[in-house]
Parts: sequence; C-alpha cells; structure tokens
Amino acid sequence: MIECWFEFGSNYSYLSVMRIEQEAARRGVPVVWRPFLLGPIFKSQGWENSPFVLQQAKGAYVWRDMPRLCRKYGLDWHQPSQFPRRTLLPMRVALLGEDQPWMAAYCRRIMRMNFVEDREIDHPEAVGEALRELGLSADALLREAESDQTKRRLRERTAEAQERGIFGAPMFFVGEEMYWGNDRLDDALDAAAG
Amino acid sequence: MIECWFEFGSNYSYLSVMRIEQEAARRGVPVVWRPFLLGPIFKSQGWENSPFVLQQAKGAYVWRDMPRLCRKYGLDWHQPSQFPRRTLLPMRVALLGEDQPWMAAYCRRIMRMNFVEDREIDHPEAVGEALRELGLSADALLREAESDQTKRRLRERTAEAQERGIFGAPMFFVGEEMYWGNDRLDDALDAAAG
Repeated sequence: MIECWFEFGSNYSYLSVMRIEQEAARRGVPVVWRPFLLGPIFKSQGWENSPFVLQQAKGAYVWRDMPRLCRKYGLDWHQPSQFPRRTLLPMRVALLGEDQPWMAAYCRRIMRMNFVEDREIDHPEAVGEALRELGLSADALLREAESDQTKRRLRERTAEAQERGIFGAPMFFVGEEMYWGNDRLDDALDAAAG
Repeated sequence: MIECWFEFGSNYSYLSVMRIEQEAARRGVPVVWRPFLLGPIFKSQGWENSPFVLQQAKGAYVWRDMPRLCRKYGLDWHQPSQFPRRTLLPMRVALLGEDQPWMAAYCRRIMRMNFVEDREIDHPEAVGEALRELGLSADALLREAESDQTKRRLRERTAEAQERGIFGAPMFFVGEEMYWGNDRLDDALDAAAG
C-alpha cells in the first residue's frame, strides 16, 4: 500500500498523478489517495507563494526540468501561464472521490487541464466538465464539495499533512517511511511491493 | 562530456561524487569537475545556512532519505554530527586538482571523511592526509591552496556558478542543459552519452 499526498497546483505532483495508477498496478500495490492543500504548508514555513516563484533561479530551472521529464515519461506538457493555480474546488472534489473508483481518472483529468490545456481549474465549469466526462453527477458532487463538512475535512487533512512532517508535494508514505517528490515514486513503490 | 558542480559540504553531492567516475566511464563520458562554494549562493538567496537547517521538516526528511539512498547505491553512511561542515580548504585543493588524474579519488576521500568518518575536513591535517594517501606532495598543495591566486579563483568560480543559474548542489551541465541533484545524474549522463 502506498499513500499518495498530492496537490493539483504542484507540477511535480502532475508527473506522479499521471503515472501512479499504472506503476502501482504493475507491482500489485494499492494506492491510497491523500489530497491536501500545499498553500497552508508553505505559509507555515513563512512562504507566501510557491518556492518556485519565490526562488527565481530554482523556478527558472523547474520550467526546463519539466518538459525534459515529460518527454522521458511520455506525458504531454504545456507550461501553465498561471502558476501556481488556485485549486480549492477540485481539491475538495478529490476529497470526496478519494475512496471512489473514479479517483485516479478524475485526478489525471484535472491535472491535464492545468498542465496541458493551461486552463483555470478552480471553477465549477472545469471541475463539472471533468466529472461529467466520467459519467458522474457533477451537480451533486459540486454541491457536496462546497458543504461546510467538506471544507472542514480538507482543512483537517492539511493539518494532518503538517503533523506528519509533509513540507512539499507529492509526498508518499509506505508505512512510516516518507518519500518526497516524483523522483522517489519508483523507490516508494518498490518498497511497497517488496 | 558532463560538468559536475559540487560542494564537499553537500550531502547530495556526496552521493554523486562517489558514483560519477564509474557511471561516466561506463558510458564513455568525460567528467569535467567544477568545485564551487554553496555558502555564497545560499546567502545571495537570503539564507544564512543550508535549507536543510533552516527548514526543519525538510531537514528531518533529508536525514531519513540519505541512509535509504546510500543502501540503494551501496555506499557507506554516517550522519555528520556537524552540518553543514566548513569546506574552504578542501574546496581550494579541489580547484587545484580539477584537471588532475587524482581529482575523483581525492574528492571521494574528502567526502568519506565528512559523510562516513564524521571528521572535520576544513583542516590541513585532514586534507593533507587525503593527499598523502594518494601519493601527492601535501605540503606544496596545501601552500598553493592558501595562495591569493587560489582564493581568488574559488571566488570567481562561485560567481560563475551564480551567473549560470546554479542554486544548489550537485548541479550537472551537459552543453547548456542543466540538471539539479543526484536524482538527475543518470539522466544527465545518458544525455551526455547520447
């Protein structure tokens, strides 16, 4: 079993979200999805934005690293014109879907909107489109996503991320072992399969 | 050809410095060594210390990540009791050795002192021991390392690192392509060999 903690706004989460279902299935490892918000984590470190925005040289590097990695993995890529994007609504829907069979496909669809189609994703239109494409009741899910209960659950999840020492995304857990970044996904899956 | 920009104080540089000569030779790729100082780079980003010290959660992670990676690569590991260590003298000697046949072995020896033997490395005793083990004239090299010319060259090298957009270590260049971190060493070598 592998826990996948991720954020739709995180470009390295994009790589892992696109890859994990297939890579985990290949090893017979179940995926436990753990959507959480990165913004409050960064804020608690004193950062008002992504480190890729705040640290100019690192940011410049990241946008050269991403197309190279996407080529390696055979993934599409378009550098978002807005980074990081607001992700509150699709993250809340992800919370509703985390134990559902449509979760992986939903996450890939939202990630594509952000990192391939360069679309705003914090809108009922975009999220509804993703849900309808999967044959789901978009209106009911969007309503539930905006409920006080879902909002509170996402805050609690993010607090849990902080308590577990998560400082970035994606983050993977295999038991108590923590693995940071898409660069560790294969090691984490191997550990989970072993 | 691959350029290897590294620092003896950097734990992820340790992994790459230990691996690069063999991995590059296997692919027929010449290694160009580029020792530089990380401290001034961090300072220019407003950091008075390593991000692994300044960011507590990330720091805690790094010391769990390192033994795992060392096991994977078959490298010895002992978490340094002092981090990051001062590295000025061994870095200056590295500058003198960067085009010499003893460079790779010298770098591995200094890295072992820091990350396996938990020894201070910014001392003539430690650096002299490493040089003598390699059959070199330790006294002459240590004298040259402390010359004004060598000091100036290391400052210039570090300024060059900054101009090239280097924000951490290890950093690899293959032509104009920049690769950050031990996690990119294999991709960089593959690109250099291709």
